[in-house]
Parts: sequence; structure tokens; C-alpha cells
Amino acid sequence: MASIKDILIEMKNLSELMVDLAYSAVLFNSKDAANEVLKLENKVNGLNYEIKKQSLVAARSVEDAEKLTALLEIAEAAESIANAAKDLADIVIKGIEPHPVFKMVMEEAEELIVSVSVQSGSELCNKSLGELMLANRTGMFVIAIRRNEDWIYGPDKFTMIREGDALIAKGTEMGSELLKKLANSEIEVDEIADIVDEESQSQFDD
Amino acid sequence: MASIKDILIEMKNLSELMVDLAYSAVLFNSKDAANEVLKLENKVNGLNYEIKKQSLVAARSVEDAEKLTALLEIAEAAESIANAAKDLADIVIKGIEPHPVFKMVMEEAEELIVSVSVQSGSELCNKSLGELMLANRTGMFVIAIRRNEDWIYGPDKFTMIREGDALIAKGTEMGSELLKKLANSEIEVDEIADIVDEESQSQFDD
Repeated sequence: MASIKDILIEMKNLSELMVDLAYSAVLFNSKDAANEVLKLENKVNGLNYEIKKQSLVAARSVEDAEKLTALLEIAEAAESIANAAKDLADIVIKGIEPHPVFKMVMEEAEELIVSVSVQSGSELCNKSLGELMLANRTGMFVIAIRRNEDWIYGPDKFTMIREGDALIAKGTEMGSELLKKLANSEIEVDEIADIVDEESQSQFDD
Repeated sequence: MASIKDILIEMKNLSELMVDLAYSAVLFNSKDAANEVLKLENKVNGLNYEIKKQSLVAARSVEDAEKLTALLEIAEAAESIANAAKDLADIVIKGIEPHPVFKMVMEEAEELIVSVSVQSGSELCNKSLGELMLANRTGMFVIAIRRNEDWIYGPDKFTMIREGDALIAKGTEMGSELLKKLANSEIEVDEIADIVDEESQSQFDD
């Protein structure tokens, strides 16, 4: 079962990353990001095949089979989400320029996606994502990093941020503001809590 | 175009909420949450029909039509994601108990979903989500609130948290810990930054 569990974790993680990457690809008209989505979709297909195979081996009784069926349906759902991400990425691959309305959609949706450029002197430079804990401090999740001509997709806590990186991140409007200011070295990490407090206070006053 | 934009924003928001709600429904074996996903899926279908109709009216030239086609493909992708969420919710509606492995998958995936109960004396009580800015302070996004027998799905910044509420939220492992401690009144909001600093420091030491 360990293997079935690990496959499903990877399918869930990848399908969610793919949706974020696909929206980013359309938003920033990035063929690189779109191609990564296509590559990941192949990977998710392969994992879905693998989990079906493993489930057939694991089923020992009718009851087993029923419970495993639910796991397979979850895997199918992850694959459907991955397919939807691929369809989004295909828009970019086909070279269709996104309608200007799409940019407005992404700016007004609940979860924003932004690209911020890490300037020299920013506190983010030469720190790992794990150390920075950006998600916990700002509500922003880094989806991908563009470094010169290379991309890092789905960075983990060990990924280091370097000067000049473009961070593609998703989160709230306030989080986007905080991340931009951190990347511009307009603010330091230890000022975030006070800024959020002030903003929270102003919500109170309204 | 305003209407097309607004429909697409709603489709994107709803499809993402549906995926989170559907995973929550399976995780907590909640027919209420699953039924909400089914209801929202109907809504997304209706919105997809509406956006197609509006696009036909808006297209004035071949160039227009091409750009609008990309918007419609984005709407289709949102509907596919909504359909995948419906398939997940159907597992719960069919009464299939989730395999114990699924709970482990959700605990080890990158984005966790947790349910935390707001205790009397918690600083969360009688504050709005907007004021609390939980997403920016902890990285946790509240997906739904269970209050007695009622549910609030996709709460907004005006939604008040009350004693006894069960908050269904997604985010990081560290964020889940912070939210649980806030809800248990083990910590106050203004202690979060120091706790995250300490955790960040320990990442440094490793």
C-alpha cells in the first residue's frame, strides 16, 4: 500500500502544480511553462496507469476492492484536473495570444498569480524557501522560478532564491504586495507582521 | 466584455473552491460538502453556457473570435476541473468509505486540508476573516465553516468566526499547527511571527 499512497500523493501534488503552472503559462504567455505542463501530464498519465496496476495486485477481497475503487476514482480525478491543465497549456502552445480580459480575470480572482523579480539587496537572496517560510509569513506559494534561461518548477524547501530570479507565486492580493516589496528590498521579513497588523486594523476601521 | 470577465472570474473561483471542498468531503466523509460540490457544478455548467452565449454576441471580427476562443477554452478548463471535483464528491454521495490510505495521502500532500474547532477564549472568536488575515499570517485559507448543523462554503472577508465553529482550511503543515493553536487559544495572533521566526531559525540550524 505504501506505493499506492506515494503514487496518489504525487498525482495530487502534480495535478495542483499543473493547474497553477498552466494559468501562469497563459498569463505570462510562456511556452516553457506550457511545455512543462505537457511533460507533467504525461507523468500523471503514467502514474495513473501504475496506481491501477498496483491496486489490482493489492485487492484481496470484495471489500478491499470497493475501498481501492474509491482511491482509483481519486486518482482519476487528479488525472482529469491534469488534463484540464493541459488544455490550458495547449492555448499557449498553439500560439494564441490571451485575450486582454484574461489578465483582468487573473488580477481579480481570489487566488492571484504574480511574477516578482528579486532585486539585489533583497532579503530573499541566497535563502532557501524553507528558511524563508514565505507561505506562512505572507500567504504566497512559489510555483516556479525563472533563473536566466532556466526554470525551476514546483520548487521545494531546499530551493535557494538568487538575485535576478523571477518568482512565479500564487496567493492573496495583500500577499502579492508583501512579496513584491520583499523582492524589491523595500521591506524586510521582520516588518511583515507589523504591516499585516496595520492592514488588519484598517479593516476594523472601515 | 465586463460580463464575460465576471463570469470567468466566478468560474475560476468556483472550480478551485470545488476541488478543495471535494477533497474535504472525501477526507471528512461529509455528504453536506459533497452535495454543495454537486450544486456548484450545476452553477459552473450554467456559467459556461452563459459565457459561450456572451462570446457569440461580443465577437465582431475574425481576430476577436480567435481571442475569444482562448477565453472559452479557459472556461472549458474551469468546467473540466469542476467536473473532476464532482467525480470526487460522487464517491461520498455513493456512500463509499474512503480507504484509510486517503487520509495519509491528505496528511502528506503539499497542500494539507484540516478541520479545526474554535474554542471559547480563542482570539479568532467574533472576528471577521478580513480582519484576521489568516492567509497572510499563517498561509491557511479557510474553505468552509461548519456552524452547528449549517455550513458556510467559500467564506469571504466579511464572514465572522464564532465559538464552536469548525474551520475547514487548506495550507502548509506549519500553517495547520498555527491555526490549531489559535483555535485552541494556545497562542495569540501577535505571537505568530515569533513562532515562524523560531521555526525558520531551526531550518537554518539543520
